[in-house]
Amino acid sequence: MTEHTTRVDVGIVGGGPAGLMTALLLKRRGISAAVIETRTKDTIHHTQRAGILEAATVDMLVDAEVGSRVLTAGHEHEGTVLSFDGEAHRIDFQALVGRSVWLYPQNEVFFDLANAWEREGGEIHWAVTDTEVHGVETASPRISFTDAHAAQRSIEADLIIGTDGSRSMCRKLIPEAVRTDHFISYPFAWFGILCEAPPTAPELIYANSELGFALISQRNETVQRMYFQCDPDTDVQSWSEDAIFDHIQAVLGTEGGVQLKRGPIIEKTVLPFRSYVCDPLSHGRLVLAGDAGHTVPPTGAKGLNLAFADVRALIPRVEEFITELRENRTADPAKGSEGPESKEPGAAVETPEALRRYSRTALDRVWKAQNFSYWATNLLHRQPEENPFTHQRRRGEFEAITGSVYGQAYFADSYTGWSD
Amino acid sequence: MTEHTTRVDVGIVGGGPAGLMTALLLKRRGISAAVIETRTKDTIHHTQRAGILEAATVDMLVDAEVGSRVLTAGHEHEGTVLSFDGEAHRIDFQALVGRSVWLYPQNEVFFDLANAWEREGGEIHWAVTDTEVHGVETASPRISFTDAHAAQRSIEADLIIGTDGSRSMCRKLIPEAVRTDHFISYPFAWFGILCEAPPTAPELIYANSELGFALISQRNETVQRMYFQCDPDTDVQSWSEDAIFDHIQAVLGTEGGVQLKRGPIIEKTVLPFRSYVCDPLSHGRLVLAGDAGHTVPPTGAKGLNLAFADVRALIPRVEEFITELRENRTADPAKGSEGPESKEPGAAVETPEALRRYSRTALDRVWKAQNFSYWATNLLHRQPEENPFTHQRRRGEFEAITGSVYGQAYFADSYTGWSD
Repeated sequence: MTEHTTRVDVGIVGGGPAGLMTALLLKRRGISAAVIETRTKDTIHHTQRAGILEAATVDMLVDAEVGSRVLTAGHEHEGTVLSFDGEAHRIDFQALVGRSVWLYPQNEVFFDLANAWEREGGEIHWAVTDTEVHGVETASPRISFTDAHAAQRSIEADLIIGTDGSRSMCRKLIPEAVRTDHFISYPFAWFGILCEAPPTAPELIYANSELGFALISQRNETVQRMYFQCDPDTDVQSWSEDAIFDHIQAVLGTEGGVQLKRGPIIEKTVLPFRSYVCDPLSHGRLVLAGDAGHTVPPTGAKGLNLAFADVRALIPRVEEFITELRENRTADPAKGSEGPESKEPGAAVETPEALRRYSRTALDRVWKAQNFSYWATNLLHRQPEENPFTHQRRRGEFEAITGSVYGQAYFADSYTGWSD
Repeated sequence: MTEHTTRVDVGIVGGGPAGLMTALLLKRRGISAAVIETRTKDTIHHTQRAGILEAATVDMLVDAEVGSRVLTAGHEHEGTVLSFDGEAHRIDFQALVGRSVWLYPQNEVFFDLANAWEREGGEIHWAVTDTEVHGVETASPRISFTDAHAAQRSIEADLIIGTDGSRSMCRKLIPEAVRTDHFISYPFAWFGILCEAPPTAPELIYANSELGFALISQRNETVQRMYFQCDPDTDVQSWSEDAIFDHIQAVLGTEGGVQLKRGPIIEKTVLPFRSYVCDPLSHGRLVLAGDAGHTVPPTGAKGLNLAFADVRALIPRVEEFITELRENRTADPAKGSEGPESKEPGAAVETPEALRRYSRTALDRVWKAQNFSYWATNLLHRQPEENPFTHQRRRGEFEAITGSVYGQAYFADSYTGWSD
């Protein structure tokens, strides 16, 4: 069988938002990229995903000329509501830190990016199988795979970027001897529903009571998203529609609290989560970005935003690395792809300093976001065997956050993504 | 033996700062008080206690005309330093929230208050024994005790205020059926030293590294206070001077970090701590204030300040209660001390609404301070079996606090005592 080989600057494993945004921004800087993805475009587009986009994420979509759908179909949220034991406080992001967030599903972000990449003639292979990444510790890394038409293919590149999600295979190419996997698990999960009802509120409501966590989100005028804390082993069938809405209403408070708009539930899912960080995010000619490098609990809505922050940190460093490679090749064409570390073909190369720098810069923000997500998760969830002190202390923490402009601004700055 | 009986508006059990400040402020409002204390004045004055006073605490000392020693002998600190893994960041309280704190030992606060109370002819009995509090659920509560001269004494009052510290006997007079004791313990303690050396720094340094917590404080030009995290079972003799200073220096960072000024250690103590809240703080004709009602870990320097915040919340409510009692007696002198709830002498009375309100108001701040103290403790200490994720997350939290004006202001507002 013939093997089709593509030669590009950067091979990208994973065609989700992080991979596609990286490909597009590299192309704008004259750096060629090819992308592979194991799922079909339709599968990703139709997998319902929530989405709260930080202003910086929206700016990237607009700057990348991906289309303005986020601005027209998305909803700007200038604040959010924190509810504790039935008492609700609005945090006014715009008034406090001059930034908003946008409600726009992640699967639509994906769709816009995929369409933009295809429209510009970018190389992308959907529904690939047999993916293998070779030689990330050498100057000639390569991706091999079988495409959707059963053809054997290969992408040769100077750099591989792993944006292949939380079950990343690229991550495993960083040897255990140099990789630290930081992670913690949580003793609860989210029970998520989609229901056919009008919005209960114009902005998100993050709620806690002695019953634990609930989140009122929106999707559009007729379909809403809600979540509440559950045991990770929960069988979704064991919860009736009435029981679900009664429980969420009880967390919001039955007297004087927000009144839930109910309607037929069209989807029920249990979403377990954990906190994970891979350190470092670069090794040889491989870098990781997005969920491949770290996952956060969903409470702080940081997942996609953190992936895009990785991309912001990554692009200038890739440009620096590729530019240096090219300059070295121009100076001494015999060096080929070996670049500054010129050695025998296939010999181990050091991780370029630009890529190490990416890892350090990205991890600074990752840990800040990990902390916020962990903090918000613990503030809003009930532990299975909770000391009663904890719920009362949480009352003090809510008061500290909502009761002063300093607490509000600290929350607003973190939630909307920090000033870079 | 003759029993000497005093009749006052308010009997105060516990002559520490909270009890004395309460007595002085009540007197200013024409409400009479008598105070008893189990220790001698000298013992309390010479028990070395640290002291970081919030601006509101200093204001109370000045307003109570206790003397201006806090302003002349105390040191205003316009900021503090947070050090993480050897990297130090100053938090500028004045620039951020327009408030300072004062370094002035708690035992000196006590001394000033005791002198003021005695100077004004206030009744106080030091070194009492056999203290018993009677009838707090009736309209005629009473304190009986043996004074330092072995005389049997009794204080009859309309209200008993328990300011008898963390091992409060007054607290136990609130029946278990109506009292909730919220508490958590910590798996570490503070190893505290006093040493003869010049100040290492002009302001406090709160430090954390993988070795855990250290705090550089000051006392005067020639004696300094320092602390570091230790196991609660630590034998102070097992730590040599060199080992102590080497350890603290290691937490501060040996390269480029703050250089410790060393000198002979004149005191070594292990200070265990816990978080505790009694709910409610009022029952019948008894209220609790200060450590009798709640204790916090020392990390946030909130203990004395929280006691004074209790007093601020308490004074107007006591005035309200006593005024109402007097008005009722004037209207119907036959009612005697029974006041509005006039019943048979010795019959159980409801807790007056003014005193219930004190409990609710005070507890709001108590839980905010408990949360801050808990948060600061966890931010700055190492858990005995710590997941490596935690230290890195802490790095993110330090960055969130020190890296933006919002985080800095949130910390500064909490540390300096919130705007009331």
